[in-house]
Amino acid sequence: MSSQDPVHQHADCIAACNACAVACHHCAASCLQEPDVQAMARCIGLDLDCAQICQLSVALMAGGSEHAAALCRVCAQVCRSCADECGRHSHDHCQQCAEACRRCAGECERMAAAA
Amino acid sequence: MSSQDPVHQHADCIAACNACAVACHHCAASCLQEPDVQAMARCIGLDLDCAQICQLSVALMAGGSEHAAALCRVCAQVCRSCADECGRHSHDHCQQCAEACRRCAGECERMAAAA
Amino acid sequence: MSSQDPVHQHADCIAACNACAVACHHCAASCLQEPDVQAMARCIGLDLDCAQICQLSVALMAGGSEHAAALCRVCAQVCRSCADECGRHSHDHCQQCAEACRRCAGECERMAAAA
Amino acid sequence: MSSQDPVHQHADCIAACNACAVACHHCAASCLQEPDVQAMARCIGLDLDCAQICQLSVALMAGGSEHAAALCRVCAQVCRSCADECGRHSHDHCQQCAEACRRCAGECERMAAAA
Repeated sequence: MSSQDPVHQHADCIAACNACAVACHHCAASCLQEPDVQAMARCIGLDLDCAQICQLSVALMAGGSEHAAALCRVCAQVCRSCADECGRHSHDHCQQCAEACRRCAGECERMAAAA
Repeated sequence: MSSQDPVHQHADCIAACNACAVACHHCAASCLQEPDVQAMARCIGLDLDCAQICQLSVALMAGGSEHAAALCRVCAQVCRSCADECGRHSHDHCQQCAEACRRCAGECERMAAAA
Repeated sequence: MSSQDPVHQHADCIAACNACAVACHHCAASCLQEPDVQAMARCIGLDLDCAQICQLSVALMAGGSEHAAALCRVCAQVCRSCADECGRHSHDHCQQCAEACRRCAGECERMAAAA
Repeated sequence: MSSQDPVHQHADCIAACNACAVACHHCAASCLQEPDVQAMARCIGLDLDCAQICQLSVALMAGGSEHAAALCRVCAQVCRSCADECGRHSHDHCQQCAEACRRCAGECERMAAAA
């Protein structure tokens, strides 16, 4: 791949989205096993939204889509709201997910602003 | 399902997104078989973007996500640009895809405006 | 589209997969709101697996993929296990989801056998 | 995350699937820009199948799904056929994609065998 191709150009954002999707799928599954699962319902829902939009953002960035920036802008919003919700819970998986979401939001905002 | 659940509330938009995703995947695969495939490159790329974002929009609407309207707003933009590109080509699959994209764009705009 | 194109050829299976994906996303979200959500953890997990593999099956069938039958074979298995789990719960969304899963499993088995 | 959680347990396979999905989306988009795009039609189709099933495999592994191994088994088959096709073409993106597909196939086979 050349240094101008979308995979290199968006390497940091792609990596952050992939890490965030994995953290979100893991957090959702782990929340479902917690004794206080009822308190985790919104967290689980946002985890799943966030995981799926992160994976689609990767697909569009890697494919050099002309709509990648528009999707990353929404992805950043979903990551922020997922980070806020996860950050409220003390479970390790929630705290780690919140961190992954915050990093991903930052990368997606940077990507969308540069486009 | 009750009449207020998201599946009923967004039934028309979900149906339009599903029809659009199918038309887009079919159009992309059909474009790849055309003798003038080189002229279809942008059409194929937009078809794939559009198919994937339509399927994610269905997932978020059916799951009652608080981010469904934000995603549908971007989905409408992708549908509009895919409809414009497909509309330029006389292949049956392109014309049918353009029509599915326009209907889906309209439904997604209505859904996003109502949210 | 001609009568031999994959969209017409697999029309029933595509429709069943789309209906199943919507029912599964709805069931998962509804389970998360139930007072007995702890008892619904496996149901939610299977709903999400099933919804996602159904949507991918649609993508591969509509695109005429040479791997569509192989994916539909696994999709049928996931639908069967989701139907079994949903069928154990009396919530309306679970019963409706179990029915959608059973229909989809049947269509996917037929599609895979014909390929 | 504990050392037995699915994200750690399947870390190599998740990384290989993510890398493969990115390589496949990039290869498909790059093939569409090649002067010999007509000769790349099957490569593009397999790239897209492979990218999507790799991303779903990540979702199921990260979520600890009981169906992850069954999906990884099919994912390995798709990766093998995509690697074979990409390997026939001398474009850099094809050769790099073939390599990513072979690594991913190996990881998915190992994962499925261990389950």
